[in-house]
Amino acid sequence: MRAIKDAVHGYVEVDGVARDLLDTAAVQRLRHVKQLSTVRLVYPSANHTRFEHSLGVYHLARRVLDGLGVDGARADAVGAAALLHDVGHGPYGHQTEGVIERRLGRHHDDVDHLLADGELAAVLESHGVDAGAVADLIAGEGRFGQLVSGDLDVDRTDYLVRDAHHTGVPYGTVDPGRLVRALRFVDDDLVLGEGNVATAESLLVARALMNATVYRHHVSRIAGSMLERAAEALLDATGLDAERFARMTDAELLAALRECEATADVAARLAERRLYKRAVWAELDAVPAWLLDADHEEVRALEREVAAEAGVDGRAVVIDCPGRPSMPETETRVVVGGEVRRLREQSPLVEGLQAAQRAQWRFGVYAPADAADAVGDAASALLDA
Amino acid sequence: MRAIKDAVHGYVEVDGVARDLLDTAAVQRLRHVKQLSTVRLVYPSANHTRFEHSLGVYHLARRVLDGLGVDGARADAVGAAALLHDVGHGPYGHQTEGVIERRLGRHHDDVDHLLADGELAAVLESHGVDAGAVADLIAGEGRFGQLVSGDLDVDRTDYLVRDAHHTGVPYGTVDPGRLVRALRFVDDDLVLGEGNVATAESLLVARALMNATVYRHHVSRIAGSMLERAAEALLDATGLDAERFARMTDAELLAALRECEATADVAARLAERRLYKRAVWAELDAVPAWLLDADHEEVRALEREVAAEAGVDGRAVVIDCPGRPSMPETETRVVVGGEVRRLREQSPLVEGLQAAQRAQWRFGVYAPADAADAVGDAASALLDA
Amino acid sequence: MRAIKDAVHGYVEVDGVARDLLDTAAVQRLRHVKQLSTVRLVYPSANHTRFEHSLGVYHLARRVLDGLGVDGARADAVGAAALLHDVGHGPYGHQTEGVIERRLGRHHDDVDHLLADGELAAVLESHGVDAGAVADLIAGEGRFGQLVSGDLDVDRTDYLVRDAHHTGVPYGTVDPGRLVRALRFVDDDLVLGEGNVATAESLLVARALMNATVYRHHVSRIAGSMLERAAEALLDATGLDAERFARMTDAELLAALRECEATADVAARLAERRLYKRAVWAELDAVPAWLLDADHEEVRALEREVAAEAGVDGRAVVIDCPGRPSMPETETRVVVGGEVRRLREQSPLVEGLQAAQRAQWRFGVYAPADAADAVGDAASALLDA
Amino acid sequence: MRAIKDAVHGYVEVDGVARDLLDTAAVQRLRHVKQLSTVRLVYPSANHTRFEHSLGVYHLARRVLDGLGVDGARADAVGAAALLHDVGHGPYGHQTEGVIERRLGRHHDDVDHLLADGELAAVLESHGVDAGAVADLIAGEGRFGQLVSGDLDVDRTDYLVRDAHHTGVPYGTVDPGRLVRALRFVDDDLVLGEGNVATAESLLVARALMNATVYRHHVSRIAGSMLERAAEALLDATGLDAERFARMTDAELLAALRECEATADVAARLAERRLYKRAVWAELDAVPAWLLDADHEEVRALEREVAAEAGVDGRAVVIDCPGRPSMPETETRVVVGGEVRRLREQSPLVEGLQAAQRAQWRFGVYAPADAADAVGDAASALLDA
Repeated sequence: MRAIKDAVHGYVEVDGVARDLLDTAAVQRLRHVKQLSTVRLVYPSANHTRFEHSLGVYHLARRVLDGLGVDGARADAVGAAALLHDVGHGPYGHQTEGVIERRLGRHHDDVDHLLADGELAAVLESHGVDAGAVADLIAGEGRFGQLVSGDLDVDRTDYLVRDAHHTGVPYGTVDPGRLVRALRFVDDDLVLGEGNVATAESLLVARALMNATVYRHHVSRIAGSMLERAAEALLDATGLDAERFARMTDAELLAALRECEATADVAARLAERRLYKRAVWAELDAVPAWLLDADHEEVRALEREVAAEAGVDGRAVVIDCPGRPSMPETETRVVVGGEVRRLREQSPLVEGLQAAQRAQWRFGVYAPADAADAVGDAASALLDA
Repeated sequence: MRAIKDAVHGYVEVDGVARDLLDTAAVQRLRHVKQLSTVRLVYPSANHTRFEHSLGVYHLARRVLDGLGVDGARADAVGAAALLHDVGHGPYGHQTEGVIERRLGRHHDDVDHLLADGELAAVLESHGVDAGAVADLIAGEGRFGQLVSGDLDVDRTDYLVRDAHHTGVPYGTVDPGRLVRALRFVDDDLVLGEGNVATAESLLVARALMNATVYRHHVSRIAGSMLERAAEALLDATGLDAERFARMTDAELLAALRECEATADVAARLAERRLYKRAVWAELDAVPAWLLDADHEEVRALEREVAAEAGVDGRAVVIDCPGRPSMPETETRVVVGGEVRRLREQSPLVEGLQAAQRAQWRFGVYAPADAADAVGDAASALLDA
Repeated sequence: MRAIKDAVHGYVEVDGVARDLLDTAAVQRLRHVKQLSTVRLVYPSANHTRFEHSLGVYHLARRVLDGLGVDGARADAVGAAALLHDVGHGPYGHQTEGVIERRLGRHHDDVDHLLADGELAAVLESHGVDAGAVADLIAGEGRFGQLVSGDLDVDRTDYLVRDAHHTGVPYGTVDPGRLVRALRFVDDDLVLGEGNVATAESLLVARALMNATVYRHHVSRIAGSMLERAAEALLDATGLDAERFARMTDAELLAALRECEATADVAARLAERRLYKRAVWAELDAVPAWLLDADHEEVRALEREVAAEAGVDGRAVVIDCPGRPSMPETETRVVVGGEVRRLREQSPLVEGLQAAQRAQWRFGVYAPADAADAVGDAASALLDA
Repeated sequence: MRAIKDAVHGYVEVDGVARDLLDTAAVQRLRHVKQLSTVRLVYPSANHTRFEHSLGVYHLARRVLDGLGVDGARADAVGAAALLHDVGHGPYGHQTEGVIERRLGRHHDDVDHLLADGELAAVLESHGVDAGAVADLIAGEGRFGQLVSGDLDVDRTDYLVRDAHHTGVPYGTVDPGRLVRALRFVDDDLVLGEGNVATAESLLVARALMNATVYRHHVSRIAGSMLERAAEALLDATGLDAERFARMTDAELLAALRECEATADVAARLAERRLYKRAVWAELDAVPAWLLDADHEEVRALEREVAAEAGVDGRAVVIDCPGRPSMPETETRVVVGGEVRRLREQSPLVEGLQAAQRAQWRFGVYAPADAADAVGDAASALLDA
């Protein structure tokens, strides 16, 4: 038994297949992918990585399984899925998700190709763990898939407390000890046991407050949008293979951006924190429906149109239009008075949080400081048209 | 300058009038009044007192004043009010508020009589601080009264983080550093500055989650109701002066209950945690309006009626009917886009929290374990009538 | 399974005999005996009790037993001993130890009389746990007695982290997770496994720093000495039975002191924090050997002599002469290079800590502020004689 | 005033020259130099950087200055020095110190060349802060230099608490609030005021325990030694300019190592945590004096000799011989009984800690797992000769 000290959970014990998975290149790579990508430009202490997060998710999953009395091969597979749930992430995690989906047609939780052969496959096989079953769990399929990727998964619990610890923002402090004790299966559904409406609410509330103050901070969104646009430009401008791109670390991507002429300026800006500014920052009601529904190519075309109108270089306009607000935790199931209910049926808080999320939603157009006014005017004119 | 180590805020510096007030019997008495009264029967670590809480409120008030550039006599008066804001509390704080209001006609934040003469008056006078002004601040009057007792007072901020630290429940962790920096006056109103909608929401949310898991835990409510009923019985059965009662410490009240024949049983039950059980536990919709509007005497009469019906001793029935839910923080003012708005106008979360509060609200009838079924039946029959 | 939220360890699970023991009057009484007695007069947040400490010791003991693979009847007995290890404490814990030993001839870890019959005996018997074995474990006897009361017991680990949490002084933060994992038996000795010299040192160091800043703070020692002297006076002046005295809570003792004419003044001084001052505060070298070896009666006689010399009332002089410094943890066993060694043989730190302890040691003579000079002169003259 | 949220100190307020310095490339570069270099291979959460550490040192320095009543130009210069104290660090901080000293003849706290011209010089000049004075402060010169780089500097306080927070190891928790309050000048010496012997001891003790468990963990030392040797090889094998090398970030160095044939293997080993193993691990007494006194070239020659003897490649042997143990904090000055004393004169703990440090000291020879036995035999033979 090996015990690894974690800043959030204390000692995490790893053994068997988990211990061998830890030593693979695919898992060690996660040491070089930050959990909160560009958030560290706002909260400088937020340098934690997907490696320790994965360890934390593994730890919580094992504790839930212990509580449910699940062990043996089943527990090994779920533990492996917990540890591997983020190996499909590209550099800078969520910031390159769109790029990878457009180029490779897969989401970060689609990891079949990573588990099919190579080192991970060999380790899983040597411990008699079925790689396909692990990939299914990571995709959220099946009974135990809910624990790895679902509205009550331990991923969420770990990142909320971990992000709070490393940013210093106290709003993410859900109670992992309580959550771990409260989870159980009713029929095949993962639910929170009796007396845990507030436990379920705490998850929603923590995410809502962390969204507002951390995850969707405008400075992080600006840097993230610049990075995503630069990643596209890099792939367009060089012969870089998209599969190779998807396996880069944060630093490798930054180095590639620095060395490519088309992206060197953005790379320097990110390294030295000379970011674009907000030229437009609009609420949901102010954004026309056609823009909300625009696809990637249409948004890029719009950027070029705004740039032309404003008389600036095409790369000087970045449009950041998040999808319509959603809140998957509202489907969370809780036992109330002996019967399983959806949290949205039970808690009037849910509707308030959804409305708050809509109220916090913002559409942004970003540009270099000296072009922000011109870009703002041009973009506003197009939006109002 | 004296620096006192506090488990929540680190070093609290006290000087001048505050330092001398600390040494008075009225403030030292707060060492013997627990902050969370009967909550410690659920959360055994919650033994913190109104003394350290008062120090914490003083500390936060001084930090806000420093940030606003307020010092001198004005700051001395506000600091004194912060330190003294709880001296009007009876034993077990909120649990004896009703008794004291009925007998003495005053609320715990009405402290004129305590500051009019005696040791506190002498200390205030020796530092040139006007006792009447301090009493007004504690009552929430005037510009700075909002800082001591209002919807954005530092009292709330201190107790939420302190109660989280000592119970171990993480939901109360608002961000005092941010709140202290965000408070300012616009005209004569205390408001949160630009960019602080989530800061305001965090206060509401923290209180809502702490209410559900800590402050209104049914075990604490049962013990608190038993205590309140026993306090009434003690005053009825003995010649104990109500003013003397109001100045007791927690332990002095327990000792008096133990020594009075009419209350000895409840005293032993509280000391050994042999509490009444829930005979009825009803949601808001199930409680008839006449009962919600019933005054103290009517509720007592109802208890006797239920006891008679159930064939048990009158003291074996305790009815606990909290007032209709309210949420004062919804009036909080925040600057948004340069103008001052009420939080309830700005944040759709407010409505959700108010609804959640109504959903969590419970009416209780408590009785000894062996009488709970009979009392439950009798009470339900009367409620349904 | 019942899970109780603790501010230090999170959820503590109690079941079986432990759960039933929790509900006994003897254990519930520990809610009313503060862990750090008079320390709260220096560190106002230090109001935690022997009740939550006992829960914490139980929690750590069970985790060690789990790690060692010990369960069943053996684990029940050790768990019961952990939970009950402090039931023998009188009011104000260590402050009345001397009084109780002189009057009743027993130490706080001698609890045979408490387990022999009554409620505790009944609960133990109903779960098939041998009361004599539990009493032996609490006295530190046998293999597992080392875990409950020995140089590596979990008592120490719990109080160091708990006292740090509640005072706010960070020096006591040993690493319970590591200690729990490192403990094992070699032959019949409880030892720390390989790689844990620093773990053992951390225990010594934490206690040394907590001694200097918290446990032996002069304000706490003054209040404690006043309390002990008053307890003696109370027993002398009234018919109070020593057995009854030993079962009091903190508040009951204070109430008794308040109501007894001989001790009313000290009671008021303690309640309002008007403490005696240091008239003499001397290092180890300055104290004559005869005084270090003096027994209780001789010290009392000396107090009277000093009082007469200084022309003050006999109760106005309190001599506080701690025993010669000792440091039991130096005998701690650690595995180094495969063999068991005593920490004092292995770690040169031990000698330094022992010397530091001697350097921090102080002898005190205390008196009311207005008598301190006269008492100081009189005491110094006698010491120098 | 800009307030930046830090995970350790809460809000850090930066203004004036400090605010502008933050935006320079030299300071932003510190976001990419980890505080604990290779320690993250043992403690996976330890990914914090010299950027947030520098902010923390700035914060503590300003608090000390506030306490001492120092403001204006003097405070600006000291604040700037605190913020810039680590800009002279090469990639991986202390791990490349030796390389840089040998190639460029300067230590990391020699930053005259960085402040003489360029962006930093311009920012300092624009705020009227003398660059030479700042460089002197960073070198520890003058009265206030003691605060930036000396045995009581705030650097140490920040890193001890920060490293504890991010590793999860609790031993580094000194009390910044107390230290900041205790520092003062007596004549021109920075000292701890009366009553702070334990405060001074806590610094020594924290560093001793963190050394043993974190800073000198053998896994971190192995990785660090591999890295240092590879950095030498990189500079030897390529035309990489030493000045350019000294300005690299951690990731840039890793990338360069990966791309250089001579170092690609070590780069892959570090990225995937396939580290060398200990072939020799010897206590101080077992190491001959000539080896302790050997310079860099002699150690390199010895490595080649061992490799030849063992029949392995020259790069497969890494000798790690730390300097003789030292403990600068023993010179710390504390006021005791009104006079300034050195801590080593006052505290017997110092000698114990120094001896403990000698006892913990280890000499290491590292090699790939499959060569470790052969290398161990060869190295032992040479050492015993």
